[in-house]
Amino acid sequence: MSESAYHRLETRMRRIGLVGEAAAVLHWDWSAIMPVGGADARTEQLAELKAISHGLLTDAETGELIGAAGEDTTLDDWQRANLDLIRRNWVKASAVPEDLVVATAKACSECETVWRTARAEKDFAKVLPSLQTAFDLVMEAGRAKAERLGLGLHDALLDDYEPGLRLAAIDPVFDDLAGWIPDFLDDVLAKQSTSPDPIALEGPFPTAIQKELGEKLMAAVGFDFEGGRLDESLHPFCGGTPDDVRITTRYDEGDFTSALMGVLHETGHAMYEAGLPKDWRRQPVGHSLGMSIHESQSLLIEMQVCRSRDFFDYAAPIMREAFEGNGPAWEPDNLYRLGTRVERGFIRVEADEVTYPAHVIGRHRLEKAMVRGDLTLADLPTAFDDAMEDLLAIRPPDAALGVLQDIHWYAGVFGYFPTYTLGALTAAQFFQTATQADPAIVPGIRSGDFQPLIGWLRDNIHGKGSRVSADELVEGVTGKALDPAVFKGHLRERYWSRTA
Amino acid sequence: MSESAYHRLETRMRRIGLVGEAAAVLHWDWSAIMPVGGADARTEQLAELKAISHGLLTDAETGELIGAAGEDTTLDDWQRANLDLIRRNWVKASAVPEDLVVATAKACSECETVWRTARAEKDFAKVLPSLQTAFDLVMEAGRAKAERLGLGLHDALLDDYEPGLRLAAIDPVFDDLAGWIPDFLDDVLAKQSTSPDPIALEGPFPTAIQKELGEKLMAAVGFDFEGGRLDESLHPFCGGTPDDVRITTRYDEGDFTSALMGVLHETGHAMYEAGLPKDWRRQPVGHSLGMSIHESQSLLIEMQVCRSRDFFDYAAPIMREAFEGNGPAWEPDNLYRLGTRVERGFIRVEADEVTYPAHVIGRHRLEKAMVRGDLTLADLPTAFDDAMEDLLAIRPPDAALGVLQDIHWYAGVFGYFPTYTLGALTAAQFFQTATQADPAIVPGIRSGDFQPLIGWLRDNIHGKGSRVSADELVEGVTGKALDPAVFKGHLRERYWSRTA
Repeated sequence: MSESAYHRLETRMRRIGLVGEAAAVLHWDWSAIMPVGGADARTEQLAELKAISHGLLTDAETGELIGAAGEDTTLDDWQRANLDLIRRNWVKASAVPEDLVVATAKACSECETVWRTARAEKDFAKVLPSLQTAFDLVMEAGRAKAERLGLGLHDALLDDYEPGLRLAAIDPVFDDLAGWIPDFLDDVLAKQSTSPDPIALEGPFPTAIQKELGEKLMAAVGFDFEGGRLDESLHPFCGGTPDDVRITTRYDEGDFTSALMGVLHETGHAMYEAGLPKDWRRQPVGHSLGMSIHESQSLLIEMQVCRSRDFFDYAAPIMREAFEGNGPAWEPDNLYRLGTRVERGFIRVEADEVTYPAHVIGRHRLEKAMVRGDLTLADLPTAFDDAMEDLLAIRPPDAALGVLQDIHWYAGVFGYFPTYTLGALTAAQFFQTATQADPAIVPGIRSGDFQPLIGWLRDNIHGKGSRVSADELVEGVTGKALDPAVFKGHLRERYWSRTA
Repeated sequence: MSESAYHRLETRMRRIGLVGEAAAVLHWDWSAIMPVGGADARTEQLAELKAISHGLLTDAETGELIGAAGEDTTLDDWQRANLDLIRRNWVKASAVPEDLVVATAKACSECETVWRTARAEKDFAKVLPSLQTAFDLVMEAGRAKAERLGLGLHDALLDDYEPGLRLAAIDPVFDDLAGWIPDFLDDVLAKQSTSPDPIALEGPFPTAIQKELGEKLMAAVGFDFEGGRLDESLHPFCGGTPDDVRITTRYDEGDFTSALMGVLHETGHAMYEAGLPKDWRRQPVGHSLGMSIHESQSLLIEMQVCRSRDFFDYAAPIMREAFEGNGPAWEPDNLYRLGTRVERGFIRVEADEVTYPAHVIGRHRLEKAMVRGDLTLADLPTAFDDAMEDLLAIRPPDAALGVLQDIHWYAGVFGYFPTYTLGALTAAQFFQTATQADPAIVPGIRSGDFQPLIGWLRDNIHGKGSRVSADELVEGVTGKALDPAVFKGHLRERYWSRTA
């Protein structure tokens, strides 16, 4: 008997998945260790792999197999979910011709390369031409997808990072937060100023020791170093593949907490990837969900867990010992207060939980203006600084602290930023549910036993892959749709109600 | 006007070349830095990329384009040479069905993984089943190619590593050397014993300093760190791509010369890759020639240059300074005598120039027996030890110093070993020609200026890619066919005639 249409689709997806894994490792290599002279060739390699995947996904046979598999009544729930995702990927990919895919991939790679220099030189003008090229191509591809999906352009862009995400869902939440944060921030800063400042830690903190400490806490959380690595890169990220998850960070010898919290954040991403269902490896249903859910996993580990007072009971002695520190600065309570210090700052990835949404909302509003055509790229630096001033009452002194700080736009990524704050909301809601469901989770964190938490995450989130949508997952796990009130309650509890 | 058949072939070769570059980086990653848990997935990724390349090379259209391009009278010499190579690759690839290609690639990857453990545990039995599987598949693919090419099985295997290389060319040269080396070795050792031993260097030699020194001398030779890296791996190799050449080594803190000479050897390979004609990047005619020529480039740098008395005039003070050494042990002459010490040893990659061919000839004879079916793999360890005893009068005390020492067979590579010694002969002949052609080369080496040498290599060898065959290159450059007398003369001059 010949192989069924569905199984032939699985074989094809497996091939696409393997090409994607190869590309993921090449992208990690590029960001973490590739010598600069390799950039042009790497750009070509990645574009070619993308073209090969695109060709496999969009050729005529894929469409026929999808049609035939749709008639197959023997499929189980996972297979049906997989088929739905294959169909969605196929529809979206078919909307964009291969030469546009390749041109876009190349333009984005090239722009990213120029950005690395421009950022070092704080010179937006240097990257503007490459950014314009990349932006135009991304919008052209976005319009093609929007037309095929019957969506607005911005919704089509959002859909690439969180399937099903729409402006209509984001804007009310962001407007609500944007209205709430400034006053809340004032209150928190006012209250914070009534207590003595926490005692600053005295550096320097050698990179080698920071790395060791990071690896130690990663391992404690559950990261398996036989299935992953920790390295350095300009922009911290989690890359690689589920069987070989690679996270990166950047070190500042004057402050170890920035790299450490970054490492723990990426560890949350890594645990998600490593916990995906092995039986569905390289099938769409076995992939992680969109970036809101991914970010919920990194923020759950970083913010909900590793900036909690409970965590510092466990981690403070380990930190003190690593740097041979002593005195009251290294007490858990002081470290907790340092780790939850609220401040109006320029850099998104270093922002505290209270100001972070403001960074995201500002960028989201700029994206709306750019996508609508109301803001030219040449005007972006000033608009960026204005947005910072509007929402956080500070103005970046240079482009490296402003519009050049993040890789996203320069890698052709528009519509991704909202997922950070949606992820923060989702993290708060998941963590509330988890700690209510298993009373061993919080005491575990206090004593350095993360197994109860990770076990819950694996059962309820990681192991489900893309079997259900993000909305279904949130509602299925927490019993209700995403509710900003939980996140606000968490902020109020940690930053306002706490004893000083 | 539509694109010509030839240009469509070039486009296809470019795609195959890019997939090959991706695979090369993934292979480097695997050997140098991949966590062990990634091995299964990496095996699948590499096998899939191989299948994709194989599919692109062998599909019906490739054959039609090759036929049509053959009628094209507008092609220039480079294009015609490129077309000939494309045709040859196509004929060979078409002989092997894709499922056999994939099965072979996977079996070899798996065997290589098992070998890493077996070697550490000195346990040949552990790798025997995987080796048998890999061997059988490699032979099956070899037989398919042999039939298509009208060659014997062993010749078909050799042809993969040095196109055109045949047993009939190797055996007389190797038999000649095998007859000459034992007596010459006795003479050299006898003469060596009449002088006082060179003074041993006192370690330890920290890895970090060894790495710095290696990088310094690599840069002096001309390695561009913007287009490559130096890392560590179990089996030193040169990998990556021409625009991002990556060499590896392994360090021994008790002896820095082993890693350093290894680094300089791989630098020779790297300079060849980096010097290939950019205009023909990713076309067969732009590739390096077979492994005899590749090895001639590594051995020219390591043996002809970096173990010469002239080189130590330049390098001795740098070595001394790196390790803060002092005393007569660090004099150029003593370092030269240490660097050209002849000794019957177990490890091929650490062997001196005089004993090295014996390692190769022994392995070549074992390969002949295995390929003919006269030697079972189960009997290989004993046969290996016997061969060492025959040719070098020493018997390995364990498998790590014997049959497990080299990666080749465990990566499915049979027929490669002869290229090392053919490379040594070729290196001697090229270097003789180069130094006669440009009298600035030797004084340059003495003073640390490698530009005259590298310039000559680039013009005469590297920049030619695969424009002519290995035989044509040797004859064109040196004015005569490969002549073992030049190599013997070099050994006699360095190890016998020199003043003690």
